Amino acid sequence: MTAVNQHFLELQGSYLFSEIAKRRTKYMEQNPNADVISLGIGDVTRGLPPAVIEAMHKAVDEMVNVGTFKGYGPEQGYTFLTDAIIAGDYRTRGIELGNDEVFVSDGSKCDVGNIQEIFSTSSVVAVQDPVYPVYVDTNVMAGRAGSFNSELGRYEKIVYLDCSAENQFKPSLPTEKVDLIYLCYPNNPTGMTLTKDELKVWVDYAIENDCIILFDSAYEAFITEENVPHSIYEIEGARQVAIEFRSFSKTAGFTGIRCAYTVVPKELKGKDANGNQVSINELWNRRHTTKFNGVSYVTQKGAAAIYSPEGRAQIQELVQYYMTNAAMIRDGLREIGLTVFGGVNAPYIWLKTPEGFNSWSFFDHLLSEANIVGTPGVGFGQCGEGYFRLTAFGSRENTERAIERIKKLSI
Amino acid sequence: MTAVNQHFLELQGSYLFSEIAKRRTKYMEQNPNADVISLGIGDVTRGLPPAVIEAMHKAVDEMVNVGTFKGYGPEQGYTFLTDAIIAGDYRTRGIELGNDEVFVSDGSKCDVGNIQEIFSTSSVVAVQDPVYPVYVDTNVMAGRAGSFNSELGRYEKIVYLDCSAENQFKPSLPTEKVDLIYLCYPNNPTGMTLTKDELKVWVDYAIENDCIILFDSAYEAFITEENVPHSIYEIEGARQVAIEFRSFSKTAGFTGIRCAYTVVPKELKGKDANGNQVSINELWNRRHTTKFNGVSYVTQKGAAAIYSPEGRAQIQELVQYYMTNAAMIRDGLREIGLTVFGGVNAPYIWLKTPEGFNSWSFFDHLLSEANIVGTPGVGFGQCGEGYFRLTAFGSRENTERAIERIKKLSI
Repeated sequence: MTAVNQHFLELQGSYLFSEIAKRRTKYMEQNPNADVISLGIGDVTRGLPPAVIEAMHKAVDEMVNVGTFKGYGPEQGYTFLTDAIIAGDYRTRGIELGNDEVFVSDGSKCDVGNIQEIFSTSSVVAVQDPVYPVYVDTNVMAGRAGSFNSELGRYEKIVYLDCSAENQFKPSLPTEKVDLIYLCYPNNPTGMTLTKDELKVWVDYAIENDCIILFDSAYEAFITEENVPHSIYEIEGARQVAIEFRSFSKTAGFTGIRCAYTVVPKELKGKDANGNQVSINELWNRRHTTKFNGVSYVTQKGAAAIYSPEGRAQIQELVQYYMTNAAMIRDGLREIGLTVFGGVNAPYIWLKTPEGFNSWSFFDHLLSEANIVGTPGVGFGQCGEGYFRLTAFGSRENTERAIERIKKLSI
Repeated sequence: MTAVNQHFLELQGSYLFSEIAKRRTKYMEQNPNADVISLGIGDVTRGLPPAVIEAMHKAVDEMVNVGTFKGYGPEQGYTFLTDAIIAGDYRTRGIELGNDEVFVSDGSKCDVGNIQEIFSTSSVVAVQDPVYPVYVDTNVMAGRAGSFNSELGRYEKIVYLDCSAENQFKPSLPTEKVDLIYLCYPNNPTGMTLTKDELKVWVDYAIENDCIILFDSAYEAFITEENVPHSIYEIEGARQVAIEFRSFSKTAGFTGIRCAYTVVPKELKGKDANGNQVSINELWNRRHTTKFNGVSYVTQKGAAAIYSPEGRAQIQELVQYYMTNAAMIRDGLREIGLTVFGGVNAPYIWLKTPEGFNSWSFFDHLLSEANIVGTPGVGFGQCGEGYFRLTAFGSRENTERAIERIKKLSI
């Protein structure tokens, strides 16, 4: 019998969302008439911007006739899209990128999952805790995580960077040698950010300590405060130490349409077994062109449309809609005396569970007393225990109703 | 500096298509008025079937409004599509599959590239020669190929299954122990097929020798002969030893739209380090859900439309168009005395280069004497030397003109 990748067997069950579904189903069976509102999942709910819809219809029509039909495109994305990305997302912030530094893909989940392939399996990986599980799980699969210590709830070889209310969810620098550091800002799940000065500390650290930052900025469109960097390349020196991941999923409602991109600057180098420099951009290009065949032309046309003046205005409206929800949730939770984080530069609100509640008992309490489903913080890591995530992606009406219910909650 | 995946450095340059482009560009510079026809790349050229266009427009419109908007879908694909696949591609041939045995993806290149991840890096891999390069390159990246022997033009740890005119491009069974066998039928690049009895020999071998067949049937829609299996699961016992890859790329013109699927039967087992059985279906499901976020809803609706009565008729017409080209190319080449393979159950025509020509010198001859670009067989492996690939994916007009020119060729 063919031997399997033994590292897969170290993966822990994807417990979080199945456990949420189980508890919700059980509650609904016992209370069939309950009007449950979900502020749990990080998925958008509003329609696509009209400019995107129009562009996609046009692109579909181009596929009808021989003269305008598009077959295989460049694996890295059409230049009409990479040009628009560079001009719209980077040049406006004083950052210059080459077309061959931007790789269009079908989702940031894929990119943040695949990026580790181009590095040695002996690389030491650091992640924030709490954390988006894909960073950890994909390194488990590759054998960088070692065994799972079920007492600690952690993998033995992963370096966890603890985040809590005490440090405002801004972790300390690693105290041991690491090679790859996953940073996500604005953060999922905490909704917190770093200022430019704070992010500079990480860039400087990476330069001094020869490590690479894998910077996930999937939520940058939700930033409202001046001093919060949208791109890590706003920080001097970042081009030599950072890869940046961006997504159209939340920015423009593309969770069901699938488009994202990854920036890998030419200055970024790794080393081979003999200590010689290797271009990370070239390695990623080889990976991307060998194992991926480009994003749908129709999707890429839709994505490019968000950079038109109409598209820009429409996605700003979309972001504003969700951020108004976020402010309502923040304010409502504070009114009843809860300690709340996030929701200012991110669509996630992260709350400290009231005294006497851990993440899961607060989940049960919120479900049974207010018929609201959220996400227990401990599902994102050990440091998430005692916290709880709500999302701003619901409808206005549901968000208003949820807040009314929360205000009546006994805590 | 962070250490890179050293195995990437064993990859050979993607020499083939860049060298073709280089020679073509040089010729065009010297002969700026030359009317060059490409029968080189394996990409479709006709428009999408009307049923697909209609379904995609409808799906785009569903994305406008909150009530019909689709966010994240199941990573494995919507059941409207997996149901259609099972009913349309399998039940009609007497094969039953569960919805959880079919994984929809954004392309067979991704799937055949990613599948190796779930197996041990010490697995021994066998490939046909000539071969689709992705099978080899993705195993090089994972460290299963060892070093490249430039004298032999082969990786030291890969088991190559030689295919030539002498064995009608049907390789002998491996003589050493292998774990994973990539088989592609109808074959790219040779266009040749196996009969049911011939494929049964491979299934029986895999059962007896505890190995897994990775069966790429991306071109099954082009099969015209009765006795050629469309699916490996037509062969008894295949469910316990085979994974099957299928694509909408060539069948329905989806190269620019991106949709494919992979079948992983529940009976298929591997073993862990202790010799215990592990479900390959569960491993692939874990890989697929961790590193992939589903195919665009719009694309999936388009793919499902090819299973409607109108869709079926339209893709048959599309396939017929290309296969008429294939027959023309075959007949034309034979008329001038060339030995020709393929083109009956596949859109590829594989010809033995005339005496005195190797693959590249025939490329140059064809380009300069007939202004036709094809693909040198040696680009697909050592056993491809002395062969040449032409594709049936051009327009009728270009194919006719190309054949007229070839008939006048001095060989």
